[in-house]
Amino acid sequence: MRQLCIVFFTLSVVLSFAQSNKKIQSFISSSVNQHRWLTEYAEFLSIPNVFGDSVNIYRNAAKIQEMLEIRGVKTSLLNSGVPGSSPAVYGEVKVPGATTTIIFYAHYDGQPVNPKQWAEGLSPFIPVLFTDRIDKGGRKIPFPQTSESIEGNWRLYARGSSDDKAGVFAIIAAYESILKTASKPTVNIKFFFEGEEEAGSINLNSIFKRNLDLLKSDVWIICDGPRHTSGKKLVVFGVRGDVNVDLKVYGAKRPLHSGNYGNWAPNPAMRLAQLLASMKDENGMVTIKGFYDDVIPLSEKEKKALEVIPDVENTLKEDLLLINPDGNGKSFKELLTLPTLNINGFQSANVGEMASNIIPAEATAVLDLRMVAGNDVDKQIGKLTDHIKSKGYHIIDHEPTDEERKQYPLLAKVVKRKGAYNAQRTPMDLPIAQRAVQAVQATVDYPVIQVPSLGGSLPLFLFEQTLNTKPITIPIVNYDNNQHAENENLTLQYLWEGIETMSAVMMMK
Amino acid sequence: MRQLCIVFFTLSVVLSFAQSNKKIQSFISSSVNQHRWLTEYAEFLSIPNVFGDSVNIYRNAAKIQEMLEIRGVKTSLLNSGVPGSSPAVYGEVKVPGATTTIIFYAHYDGQPVNPKQWAEGLSPFIPVLFTDRIDKGGRKIPFPQTSESIEGNWRLYARGSSDDKAGVFAIIAAYESILKTASKPTVNIKFFFEGEEEAGSINLNSIFKRNLDLLKSDVWIICDGPRHTSGKKLVVFGVRGDVNVDLKVYGAKRPLHSGNYGNWAPNPAMRLAQLLASMKDENGMVTIKGFYDDVIPLSEKEKKALEVIPDVENTLKEDLLLINPDGNGKSFKELLTLPTLNINGFQSANVGEMASNIIPAEATAVLDLRMVAGNDVDKQIGKLTDHIKSKGYHIIDHEPTDEERKQYPLLAKVVKRKGAYNAQRTPMDLPIAQRAVQAVQATVDYPVIQVPSLGGSLPLFLFEQTLNTKPITIPIVNYDNNQHAENENLTLQYLWEGIETMSAVMMMK
Repeated sequence: MRQLCIVFFTLSVVLSFAQSNKKIQSFISSSVNQHRWLTEYAEFLSIPNVFGDSVNIYRNAAKIQEMLEIRGVKTSLLNSGVPGSSPAVYGEVKVPGATTTIIFYAHYDGQPVNPKQWAEGLSPFIPVLFTDRIDKGGRKIPFPQTSESIEGNWRLYARGSSDDKAGVFAIIAAYESILKTASKPTVNIKFFFEGEEEAGSINLNSIFKRNLDLLKSDVWIICDGPRHTSGKKLVVFGVRGDVNVDLKVYGAKRPLHSGNYGNWAPNPAMRLAQLLASMKDENGMVTIKGFYDDVIPLSEKEKKALEVIPDVENTLKEDLLLINPDGNGKSFKELLTLPTLNINGFQSANVGEMASNIIPAEATAVLDLRMVAGNDVDKQIGKLTDHIKSKGYHIIDHEPTDEERKQYPLLAKVVKRKGAYNAQRTPMDLPIAQRAVQAVQATVDYPVIQVPSLGGSLPLFLFEQTLNTKPITIPIVNYDNNQHAENENLTLQYLWEGIETMSAVMMMK
Repeated sequence: MRQLCIVFFTLSVVLSFAQSNKKIQSFISSSVNQHRWLTEYAEFLSIPNVFGDSVNIYRNAAKIQEMLEIRGVKTSLLNSGVPGSSPAVYGEVKVPGATTTIIFYAHYDGQPVNPKQWAEGLSPFIPVLFTDRIDKGGRKIPFPQTSESIEGNWRLYARGSSDDKAGVFAIIAAYESILKTASKPTVNIKFFFEGEEEAGSINLNSIFKRNLDLLKSDVWIICDGPRHTSGKKLVVFGVRGDVNVDLKVYGAKRPLHSGNYGNWAPNPAMRLAQLLASMKDENGMVTIKGFYDDVIPLSEKEKKALEVIPDVENTLKEDLLLINPDGNGKSFKELLTLPTLNINGFQSANVGEMASNIIPAEATAVLDLRMVAGNDVDKQIGKLTDHIKSKGYHIIDHEPTDEERKQYPLLAKVVKRKGAYNAQRTPMDLPIAQRAVQAVQATVDYPVIQVPSLGGSLPLFLFEQTLNTKPITIPIVNYDNNQHAENENLTLQYLWEGIETMSAVMMMK
């Protein structure tokens, strides 16, 4: 199958299929290596990696340094100089005769965890193997003895297993695979592993600015995010921007007995519900004035690329058990090229056993707004706050004072979180980017999917702005990995194939 | 002041002012007794009293038995026979020559607690004294030495301090005050202290049915809830009914990355916001079809009683810092005679530091619906579910199966909680009730407020239905006690006056 010859044109580039490096393939599929890697990766995952937990963040960085150093890569920590920030782990391999330099990026920090929300028997930082996805009937199994074979469809559950320690590990193991098979990288390799991506890369620019020479390169390869829902490999040329906003509304100054005050004291949970409900129609389209303005339409090349991306609606509907998606009939692919307004979570008082018969004093939501090319973070937030004002609210950025409560019948605290950034797009015909596409293409016998812009976000605009270098993204993990939520997991076969992908890029023609 | 003679007519009953029992007053205001009571009460409050925590529930019951027994009252525990239910503590004092029997009721269980929500330095079951309400600048002070005087405006913070261990303690200390001053009760006294009122008195009827003879009486005096916002004593002839409903809506089968699926995967938090928002207008009036139907209008007597209740809107607005109450211009008093729909709390995924960039998989709200005379619990819930259906939802009473998710685009789980009950009203001209009013009246020099129906709820319909006895309610605690919420507290002066009130009722003419 690997040599299957299909002539396939996309974006005027003739793709050559599956000319993969047999030595590398054999090394990666070796049982001995997979056992060793599985053990090493589980050790890495067992170090908690939530931003702000400095002790463990530094333990992660040290572990990465160790993993690189035992493979002969000299490393250092790059600090932003901001107290409490996470270091980036840097490493470098100079290849004699190479004229191209590639920086491989992944991040080792993970999203916050609420252990209670994880499935029974799972703990975010105790990696556990299952025979399949838990909700598809996967059974928990012990880590295999060296005499047992490792199945590719096993799932490894832990925070960061997919997002994005998998990227870190695949890059390191890819370099090892080249080294141990006496293969030869064609490019100078730089490693850059960030430690606060999930906190919005708030100090990444400081690290960049302090290391302009060290971080010179021809392209950044961002190894993050999931492969296509169809399972196919993909190369991504852009990402959405992202900003989180905390929104809080108020009722009486203290919670009240719902009988003694019910019908008279306004309920902030109801106020917040009414406010949020006013922001979207029943098809999930944002009703805030001008929300979809500013969007730069896709180029012809980007439109064509979008067209050949396989449709996944039916797969997703089946898998997620959704029969009525949002988007007013627009395709999944098209919807990812539009800005979003999403509720990450909301809370007022308690639910479940902790609920009590009160009128809460406040209600909070966390929103995230994704931006696409043309959108500006602050302009987008401005539209949101204008909308809130139009509903009669006075906007504050702090807990209300008594005076403010006496002056304004409706108060909304709106706070933009740190780490906001705009979208970024790399032109699809950039030569170095297309060389990377060819390298990935050589590992598979179907056309690699090329995506003008991912639905997800990374602060890639910084690479252009501060380093004057274009980034492209090559995701490696399974799409159903519960990234950012509880029960995050990685399908092992995707890790092995990710190692192969990264090796191929390191040996690009 | 106490003998101030104002001729005041209400409901054609001439009130006599402040003919209080000097011996009793002196006993209650004695520093020795107040110190002893404060210590004893703090011990009582330090026993956790959340329904379901059986070990501590029984410790509370044992403590109450001990407090009664050392005052010479023989006690027993009345069980419902339902496993895991809380016992009621029963005690009895027969008075030679008495022809009237009164059962004094209070409950010793408290609302659930979330210790994190309590003010810094407060723990729900470690009673702490403050010089005033914390948010009014009260300072934490140690429990006083016996040589120090106790200030009436001190606040005692703890779960149950007001709701309703204060009722239990005031009744017991009232009996002690009669006993120790060689005063004489005019009625046979029965004590009945319930242990699961906050769980909706789900087993109270079983206890009643098993003890029909033991619980014979002429009236039940319910000592629960706060005095009037003006600080005045009041007697209440009715309560609203109450039912809690859990409401849950669903999105995709698992939480999703908000970038990779944003704009396409429906957000259940938004769905719940839209659903809740559709239930009330911007003035807080319920828009569910027929919601205010079925309400029996107040009688002429009840209307007149309502008219003479002091208006409290301005006090409440000032205290709660609310300048725009709900209710479409209706008065506070009138609004309490209407049914309610209130959000106790809602939650979807996480807010604050725990928030992550996901589209949640589900969103939950807990509603409480208060009923007034004429409303029926199930009929009222029927109106709610009809409304939810009218918004396109298919109603289920369980977590959705995969088949249901595939069949219905919108699913809402609606579960009526146990412990639901209808409203109850005792006629205001019932002779025994008016004797109790006179007793309370004798302790103060202003007209005692008579309320046809309280905003709050108690399962008082059971007393009529199973025991064929009318209940009336005599609240004793401060209105700003944070009942049901965090930072529950009791103003000590209200406890002392509550003891006097209960003594007076035990010696009613």
